[in-house]
Amino acid sequence: MRFINETTSDEEYDRQRAYFGPFTDAVRDLLDATIRTEVDEQTIRTAQATIEAVTATLRSRQIDGAYGVRVTEAGRSRSWGNPVVGLRNPIAPPLIITRDADDRCVAEFELGAAYEGPPGHVHGGMSALVLDHILGEAASGGMTKPNFTGTISCRYVRATPLGPLRAEAYIDRVDGVKTFARGFIADAEGPTVEAEGVFITPAWAREVS
Amino acid sequence: MRFINETTSDEEYDRQRAYFGPFTDAVRDLLDATIRTEVDEQTIRTAQATIEAVTATLRSRQIDGAYGVRVTEAGRSRSWGNPVVGLRNPIAPPLIITRDADDRCVAEFELGAAYEGPPGHVHGGMSALVLDHILGEAASGGMTKPNFTGTISCRYVRATPLGPLRAEAYIDRVDGVKTFARGFIADAEGPTVEAEGVFITPAWAREVS
Repeated sequence: MRFINETTSDEEYDRQRAYFGPFTDAVRDLLDATIRTEVDEQTIRTAQATIEAVTATLRSRQIDGAYGVRVTEAGRSRSWGNPVVGLRNPIAPPLIITRDADDRCVAEFELGAAYEGPPGHVHGGMSALVLDHILGEAASGGMTKPNFTGTISCRYVRATPLGPLRAEAYIDRVDGVKTFARGFIADAEGPTVEAEGVFITPAWAREVS
Repeated sequence: MRFINETTSDEEYDRQRAYFGPFTDAVRDLLDATIRTEVDEQTIRTAQATIEAVTATLRSRQIDGAYGVRVTEAGRSRSWGNPVVGLRNPIAPPLIITRDADDRCVAEFELGAAYEGPPGHVHGGMSALVLDHILGEAASGGMTKPNFTGTISCRYVRATPLGPLRAEAYIDRVDGVKTFARGFIADAEGPTVEAEGVFITPAWAREVS
């Protein structure tokens, strides 16, 4: 397991962000429409043929396997394939995580039709996905080398409605290579899911040049 | 929160499945290509315009809000918008869950680039999403009225590689409205993540006509 050290300059990084961001948003929007459309069979079949042609064009030049985690010359991390925060992953809501003055990780985001479990509500496992990520981010303390989840526990206080949500996470305590983090997802009326996790920095992560 | 009782016949259900399944597969494939493509900016911009046009066509007739959970006249449940098993959700791998002779839920599936966390490996939260779903399915005992997650805990034994995987879940014990389920995700060499969850049948779920 290796992080990729890129020779990408910050300028090139920003240039790519400027077109891959809107492109991924378009695919994300298609994904929502795929679930919600009520057009007839022929229209679906025509849409499918068009999408298959676009995919073939995109695949005419592509990387082998997954995107990986890349680090630019300036040390900026690019997890663009990540399913929670990745700029190039249409699965990602995406979360834009910021750190407040107390080093708490905070993200405001919106979950729509693609994240539904019980009718009108967020799939419990999607909340776990978001919480695993933001707790891991808090545990890593802003480092580019993420920790691995050791354990994570989520407690569902009440059903989380689809719509605008907020997630927060912070370090509770550190014990050697183990970092204990806590956090929650909340709607306008308060927390709906609470989580605690133990994150571990593996030996190899400290060896990456 | 309401389940939708549809007047859809089994024939109509099968007819829709026959074209929505391949269509969603095409969008899922596009999603993978979106992450892995290395084509130039102009090609991306052209692809974006094409996708936006397809999305507009799909949105010309669509449902308000999310898909919901629909039950056909014959009592077949359609969670087609579900992010783990949904036939119409490109986020879903999708899992096809079967029950073995001992009523254990089992699914063989493959996770590629769109589910990556650490380089070459499954995002820990994606494992939690899959486990939350399959444990919930086991806890519901094949009923069309799913339980809600009360708590779920995942223990990461080792990193889960991208590629072919297996998930299993079963009921450990039942105590009133609480069902205790256990399960794991495994690669060819054995379990990588273990989970236990408490699932609760809410009062309203028993009231749905």
